[in-house]
Parts: sequence; structure tokens; C-alpha cells
Amino acid sequence: MEIDLREIHSPADIKGMSMERLELLSAELRAALTRKLAARGGHVGPNLGVVEATVALHYVFDAPKDKIVFDVSHQSYAHKMLTGRMEAFLDPSRYGDVTGYTCPRESEYDLFEVGHTSTSIALATGLAKARDLAGGKENVVAFIGDASLGGGMALEALNYAPELGSNIIVILNDNQMSIAENHGELYNHLAELRKTNGTAENNIFRALGYEYIYVEEGNDLRSLIRAYSEARGQNRAVLVHINTMKGMGLPCAEAHKEQFHYNAPFDPKTGANLVMAQGESYQEIFAHHLLSKMRDNGSVVGLTAGTPGAIGWGPEMREAAGKQFVDVGIAEQDCVTMAAGLARGGARPVVGVVSTFLQRAYDQLSHDVAINNLPATFVVFYGGMFGMNDMTHLGFFDIAMVSNIPNITYLAPASAEEYLAMLDYAVDSAAGPVVVRTPGGAVRHQSTPVNTDFSKYEVVEQGAEVAIIAEGSFLPTALKAAEILRGKGVAPAVINPRVLSSVDAGCLDALKGYRHVITIEDGIVDGGFGQKVAAYLGDAPVKVTCLGLKKEFLDRFIVADVLIANGLTPEQIAEIA
Amino acid sequence: MEIDLREIHSPADIKGMSMERLELLSAELRAALTRKLAARGGHVGPNLGVVEATVALHYVFDAPKDKIVFDVSHQSYAHKMLTGRMEAFLDPSRYGDVTGYTCPRESEYDLFEVGHTSTSIALATGLAKARDLAGGKENVVAFIGDASLGGGMALEALNYAPELGSNIIVILNDNQMSIAENHGELYNHLAELRKTNGTAENNIFRALGYEYIYVEEGNDLRSLIRAYSEARGQNRAVLVHINTMKGMGLPCAEAHKEQFHYNAPFDPKTGANLVMAQGESYQEIFAHHLLSKMRDNGSVVGLTAGTPGAIGWGPEMREAAGKQFVDVGIAEQDCVTMAAGLARGGARPVVGVVSTFLQRAYDQLSHDVAINNLPATFVVFYGGMFGMNDMTHLGFFDIAMVSNIPNITYLAPASAEEYLAMLDYAVDSAAGPVVVRTPGGAVRHQSTPVNTDFSKYEVVEQGAEVAIIAEGSFLPTALKAAEILRGKGVAPAVINPRVLSSVDAGCLDALKGYRHVITIEDGIVDGGFGQKVAAYLGDAPVKVTCLGLKKEFLDRFIVADVLIANGLTPEQIAEIA
Repeated sequence: MEIDLREIHSPADIKGMSMERLELLSAELRAALTRKLAARGGHVGPNLGVVEATVALHYVFDAPKDKIVFDVSHQSYAHKMLTGRMEAFLDPSRYGDVTGYTCPRESEYDLFEVGHTSTSIALATGLAKARDLAGGKENVVAFIGDASLGGGMALEALNYAPELGSNIIVILNDNQMSIAENHGELYNHLAELRKTNGTAENNIFRALGYEYIYVEEGNDLRSLIRAYSEARGQNRAVLVHINTMKGMGLPCAEAHKEQFHYNAPFDPKTGANLVMAQGESYQEIFAHHLLSKMRDNGSVVGLTAGTPGAIGWGPEMREAAGKQFVDVGIAEQDCVTMAAGLARGGARPVVGVVSTFLQRAYDQLSHDVAINNLPATFVVFYGGMFGMNDMTHLGFFDIAMVSNIPNITYLAPASAEEYLAMLDYAVDSAAGPVVVRTPGGAVRHQSTPVNTDFSKYEVVEQGAEVAIIAEGSFLPTALKAAEILRGKGVAPAVINPRVLSSVDAGCLDALKGYRHVITIEDGIVDGGFGQKVAAYLGDAPVKVTCLGLKKEFLDRFIVADVLIANGLTPEQIAEIA
Repeated sequence: MEIDLREIHSPADIKGMSMERLELLSAELRAALTRKLAARGGHVGPNLGVVEATVALHYVFDAPKDKIVFDVSHQSYAHKMLTGRMEAFLDPSRYGDVTGYTCPRESEYDLFEVGHTSTSIALATGLAKARDLAGGKENVVAFIGDASLGGGMALEALNYAPELGSNIIVILNDNQMSIAENHGELYNHLAELRKTNGTAENNIFRALGYEYIYVEEGNDLRSLIRAYSEARGQNRAVLVHINTMKGMGLPCAEAHKEQFHYNAPFDPKTGANLVMAQGESYQEIFAHHLLSKMRDNGSVVGLTAGTPGAIGWGPEMREAAGKQFVDVGIAEQDCVTMAAGLARGGARPVVGVVSTFLQRAYDQLSHDVAINNLPATFVVFYGGMFGMNDMTHLGFFDIAMVSNIPNITYLAPASAEEYLAMLDYAVDSAAGPVVVRTPGGAVRHQSTPVNTDFSKYEVVEQGAEVAIIAEGSFLPTALKAAEILRGKGVAPAVINPRVLSSVDAGCLDALKGYRHVITIEDGIVDGGFGQKVAAYLGDAPVKVTCLGLKKEFLDRFIVADVLIANGLTPEQIAEIA
């Protein structure tokens, strides 16, 4: 009666199973998942919570003919195990074979590269519309968490989907958590639906035209299979609301849901982290500095859109900040525009945001903040190549995105001291919007005083003939390249530009007689600060080389390889100088 | 008993009025509005529909202490009349004194420059939070239309606002229309609320924690004043749902709501347009070409996010396209990501979008479309300086925004023939995402065949010494500049780059021996295609000048002035060559 997971090659292998065997299967999947997650880290709670919900999906629906779209897709591990990728979860030497998100390059069961929230229903409406035009009959399923549902585009699509008038199934995985706690009144409403076993008269989903099915026991296979079977094949929009337990089956993950949303390798018995954080982090520096500013000034407000941990604001810090810290939930647009409102109202808003997620509020940054030229501060984390490395979470694009919006000052510090000085400038005295780019890599310190006129580049090392203008985390690289060059008899100037949204004309004019100006930035070259320098120096005979990343989406890259591929090592830079 | 509008200088002047005088006032405001709208054009229906709702606002609330935020703010004309700007609506010689949107530069009663939808509730939450931190007691009011409410960020903020636990009032101006008809199931729900006089048990606003007040007669001052008074001063979130008539009081606008959402000058008696459209338009060319492609291929789908008219798709065209045309409502994120789903499902989606509104779907373009490298087509309208000229609707930024996203091919045609060929390429054969930039200005034709290898620049006129690479609508300018130069004995090459997201290395290599390369683009220079050219030519001695617009937000500019200010006339270009 035992289950050998290695014999599960595709969903076909589970279709004929009895309920007992499906339950055994779920237990085995959970055990294997726990082993891999403990050894490698990853999205612990989300994946352990949906083992049964995923087994039931592949039992009831007929993928890949039926189309299943996972929102964020950080909870798709059990799905991967059931769709031909079991070894990547059983064999430690193959743990790296699969990405942490759905990935069409891996499997026809994965329809999209996904990593940002709230996209699944819109993707599903597209699949459903394409099906309807082609005269198909397959089911289209969006599997979305309660936290992701609060994102604007999920609500847009939730609103639109029933208008298709054809089959679309939204499975709402309600684990009562975002990464941290949920925010927004929708969650009180979901609580009301749970409390009434789905019978509350006031029902937002019915109001929007959905057939609504509630599953109180969202980790019970029988209940799930019954509900999914009822939803399957209907020629209308159906929402199946399943009440699941985040971290199910692993006591430490059940108990510490925020910590175990995503965790580094850990001891599954105690929950203790196996990798200790080392030394300082910019997150901590930011959070403590902002908290002290809050204490000095009651109008300073910290904001996040659902990712407090990623910006250094754990539960204790949030508690300490009280009403001066706002988490709007996964709603980046609302967060950025609320900051505009705060600034107009006389407060000093400081939004901490992960580079890749700031993309979700481009128009809010431009239309609400920049056009109104409001003094709001945005602090970007994980910008550049030294942070996240999943294809859907790259931080290569924020310089091109932010620095070309009028009225915004985009600052890139190269040390902790410069970082703090820029935060002080932005929060205490700037008259318009300032974005500060948290450096990637290890925290660097400078012993020299920080020049607080941030419209000016800073010459870190005087030189002649060659100048290297290196942004943020690449300043140490430039200093090393300069050392190599000095060994060859060339004395390059090394310059920290600090501001990415404009050029320092005076500084650049002084370089027009140089032989070669090299710019380096931790992001794509296209649209970046280097191209502004190249254009400014277009009328001078000086040679200009813009270094940075090629405009491409990389996936799970090795930093050292990317540095070499883009000519970004000190040796390579010295070579071309 | 008559009302002299010229005696209304601020809301204080209407506070003591009797109901009869308020009614007279409303009638006078409507008559004056109608005169100005007929003479100048503008947002006819939205403004006529909210005259009473605005009079009641300023009667009940105490602006500017109480803070009123208008969503989109295209309906703020009566508000402007009541807050010190009456002359701009009475005196034809002063009609141009005010913008078409709220404008803090004009008045302290206007809190934000606004022109995009769905931002008001988020702005209001920021104002409310700032008030709470400062210990204030004023009311904060967001005035939002039913169509705008369907935008994701409005729903995000609607969800978050009650969590503030303090005063915030959302006035939902339900005129049962978007620019065109509404889309999404929310509107069936609003219909149910109207039908039941606000008593339906299923109530999405109550579900989200709002106190809900319904006003059936949304053009009746007494009802409005009663409802607003009930909402005022409450220490919680209140939603006042008012049922208004778009275009109220002007028969042609009441009857033709889509046409009179925004209209050119017209005869108020007949509704006939006073300004006739002249000659061809790219909108028409696009719409007819796409319709013929739909007829050839049942998988071609046209999509819009609530602005069908702006992309040439009037009611008849939509009718003709049937199921192959999708309007998701004002939900750009949903629209772009639905296109990704359509493409994955095997359909050929074509999204028509106004440049400034594409900003609202930056992440969807990047994360959903580009990372997945899906063959979806996006056709940008009103890009550049020849289209819209309100500060909140500028089309200067799409080149920097779109062309720096990997995997996207951004094409800029310079003639109708090139436009059609690019559309054919994008829709029929491209393997990845293609964005086509509709040229600004008059339709231009070319008699030479179109080279369909769009990765290559096209040399339109051979030359030597000087090369002018001019994007899209600036090609005629470049040709004129070349003519001037030829008169001076210089024979410049004139090049149409066609692709903005990459450089044509072969073409540029051939220019390295030139004396001067000039790039021109219809957008900001920063982050644009010219800076890519400058960077590429950084290793050559050739001088490079990048022309285009300065990175700034202009408002209601005169094209001729902007051309001169940025050195973009043929004479200026010839001068610097």
C-alpha cells in the first residue's frame, strides 16, 4: 500500500487512486517537500499548505489540456512533483533542476513564468477567451492566494472574468496570511465567509456574478475533490474558496507563519535557521534609521506593500513604529499613491520597496508623485545583480525605469554613510520626490565625510587620461580596476556619480580632455545613467564606454559568471581602459 | 432672486443660500458650462452630470479645510466655478485660464494634478492618514465615478481605506457609463443596488466595511445634501452612492453619452460637431486594418482598457468585430496581462492603448508579456508631442519606458504604409512581443516599398559627413533640414531608424567616419533611442547630438514653441549640423 513517489510521472498516475492512496500520496509529498525545503530553503508555508489542494487539482482536472495558472506560483512545488519533475524534489543532487516558480521551459504543465502577484485571473481570462474563439472546451483554472487577491489587477480581472460568460474557475486559497498579516477589509469579509461556512448573505463573489463554493476543510482531499468536481465543466465563472492552513504539517511553519513564508535552510524539528545572517545588512540600517527618524518626527511614515520583511521591518520593528508604519497589503499602486497623499497632507512618507515590485507602480510614481512634485521618499531594495536572481524578480531595470521620470531625483549611495545622508536629505529636506537605491552586496563604509550636495558627482580618486564613473555597488570594483591600472602606469580618476537621474555637467566637462571615460552601473546599460553620460559627452572627442548588464532576462544566474559575461570584473575593466 | 454667478467667489458665498437659490445656482452653472463646453469642447457629459453633486459638496463640506479629491478630475469644472475661477467659465476671452483637470497651481481648493483614473481613494487615504498623525479633524472626500472604480488601484484603496479607522468619505458618482459602456460584473452589482434603492442584501461596500448611503436622485440637491450631511464628520469609512445622469440637462449629451463624454466644439441645440475631422487619421487606418485582419483570422483579438474611441473603435466597429473585440473597462493591467494569456492560448491579441495610459501597465508588459516572450501586439496612440498636451496626459515617455524592457521590439513607423507593414509583421508573424508607435501629426504616405526587415534602419537619403537619424513623426523634419543643408553644400544622410529598442550596428558602423550624427525622437531624450546611438558610437570620434524633448512635464504647450525650445525645427537642426 505504500506510495513510491518515483512512480508518479504525470497526473495520469494519480487518476485511478483510491482516496486512501491519495491521502498517502499527500503525506509522502509533504514529507519530501519538507526535506527539500529544510535543506535548500524556499517558500515553506505556501507549499506545505496546498499539498492536498494540488493533488485534488490534478485528480479532478485534466492538465495540460485543462489549463491551470498559479498566482505568483511560489506554491507550485507539489504541482511540479506531480507533473514529471519528482526527482528534483527527491534527489538532493537534483534539487537545483527546477526553479521556484512555474516555468514553461521545464514543462508543458507550466503555462507562464510568474513571480509577481495578482496576475493569474487576468492570464486565465486570456486563456479562456482564446479557448472560446477556438471553440475549445477545456477548463481554465486560476489558483490564487487570499493575499494576492487584494492586488489591484487581481480585482480588475475578478471583476471582468464573469463577463466572458464561459468556463473560468478561480480557486481562492485562503490561508489567512499575506507574507506577513493581511491588510484591507476584504480579509474581514473572507473571515465572515469562513465563520458562516460560506453562507453569509453578503458575499462579494456572488455580488460579482460568481457561483461560489466554500470548502471549510481546505486540507481535506474529499472536500476538495467534491468542490472541484462541482466547478469543473461549468459554462460560467465559479469561485471555489478553500480554507487552508499555511505551513500545514510542519509545526514550526504552522506556528511562525511570517518567518516560514520564505525561509533559508532550517532544522525541521526545531525550526532553527541553519544559515546565520552575517554582519550588517542595509535592511537593518534602513529600518533602525527610519525608526529613529519616526521618533524625532511624528509625521514620518514608513510604508510597504506587503513586504515588510524584505525592507527590514520585522514584527518588532512594526510594533515599535505603531501608527507610523503602514502596510497596505500587496497593493503597490495604492502604496505609492497613498504616499503622494501623505506628502500633500504634510507628512513625510518613506516607501520601502523591492526593485522588481516598484515596476508595479510606475504610473503612480510618475502621475501621482512626480507630476505633483511631492516630497515623498522611495527606498529601493534588491536593485541590481547582487540581490534576487529569479527571472521574475530581477533588479536590473529600476535605473532605466525611475531615472527617466521628470522631477524625480534618483540617488545611488556607495556606502552606508552616504546611504544615511541621502535618506536624511530625502526625508528631512527634499522639496520633491527622491528615490534612494540601497546598494547591493556587503555593507561598505567610508571614513571620509559625505558631501551632501547630491547633484554633484564625487571624485573619489583624482586621476588623468582615464576616468571610471561607477555607480553604487560597483565603486569598489572601479577602485580595484584603478589599482590595476596604476600598476600599468595609468592613473585613472574614480568617480562616484551618486545621482543617476541627471548628469553633473561640471564634472563631465572636466573629463572632455580625457582619453577614455568608462561608466559602470548595476543594471542594464540601456536607458541607464551611462547612456546619459555618453550623450552628454557626444560632442567631445573622448571615447566613452558604458558598462553594465545587457538588456535581457537572466534566470538563476551566478553573479561571477554575469560579471565576466558583461566585462565587469576589475581586470576586464582595466584591460579596456 | 436671480443668481449672478460673478458674485460667487468661494464656497462661502453659497453656504447661506436657500434650497431654491441653490437650485437656481445649479441651473445657472449648468447653462454657463454648456456655453463654454459647446464653444471650446471638453468633458461634456461628466461635468453636466455632477453640477448638483458639486454644489452640494461645497454647501456641506468646508473646503479647503475639508479636503476633496476628484478622480480623474475631468468632472471638476463646477468645482472650479465655485472656488474662485468663475470668470474662466463666463468670459470667453478667459476660457483658457484654467486647465481641464484639478490643478494646485490654480487654487488651494485643488489638491493634486490628476488626469488618470482610479487614484482618488488612495490619495484620500494618504490625506486622511496625514490628518490622523497630525491630530486633525477635517473631512477627507474622494469623488469617484463608477467607471474609475473598476480600476485596480481604486479597488486596492477601496479595500484599504476602512482599515484607517477614521474619517474618509467616498462619493461614488454612478452615471452608469465609462467613456463607452461599462465592463465588468461590478456594474451589474451597482445596477442591483440602484434597482433596490440601495437595500440589496448583497452589498460589496458593506462587505468591505463601509457605511453605505444610497441616493437615488443624484441630481437632486436636497437628497444630496441630506446624504453628504449624514456622511460628514463620521469617524469611519462611508460610501455615498449617488445615481446621476451623465450629460444632464443637455439633450444631445443625454442621448449620446459615449460621443459627449469628451467632445469637440458643438452646436448645443443639435449636438452637431462644429469642427469636422479632416482627412485620414491613423486611428481609422488602424481600426479598419485590424478589422480586416480579424475577418481573415478568427484568432485575432482587439483589446482596449476603456478607451475604444481613442484607438478608432467606435460603436459600429466594435459591433462589426463582435467577439473579437474586448473592452475590459478601465483596467490597463488586466488588459495587458489578458493579452499575455490570449497569446499563450494561441490567439493573436492586439492591444490599442494611449501612450500615457500604457504607463499603468509597465509591470504587466515586462513581467507577463516580455519575460514570457509572448507574441502580443501593442499599438501606442498619442505618443510624442503631437497628440495630447495636458500635463497628466503627455506622450513623451513611452520610448524610454517600453524600449528598455528586454524581449520587446519597439517599432516606430514614419508613414501609413510602414505602419501597416509593421502591424502585419507584429500580428501575423512575430515570435515575441511587438509594440508599434502610431505616428503623431498628419498621416504621411510613402511611395517606395517598405523594407520589412524591421531590425534594420533605413537610409532614406544617402549622404556624407552628416547623418540625421529621425524617428517616426520627425522624419519629414529631417528631410527638410537636409534640404536646407544641401543648399549650404552639405549632403547629409537621412535615416529612418524604425526600431527603437535596439540599434542597427551595421548602419551605425558605417557612420563612424562621419563628422556628425544627429538623432531626433518624438519624446524625451533621456532613456531614448538617441542615447543608445550615442553610447554605441562612444568609441568613434564622430560627434553625436541627441535631439528630442527635455525631461520635464509640460502643460498645455504650443507645439511650435516646444519645437523651438528644444532645437527641433528644420532650421535649428540644419544650424547645428
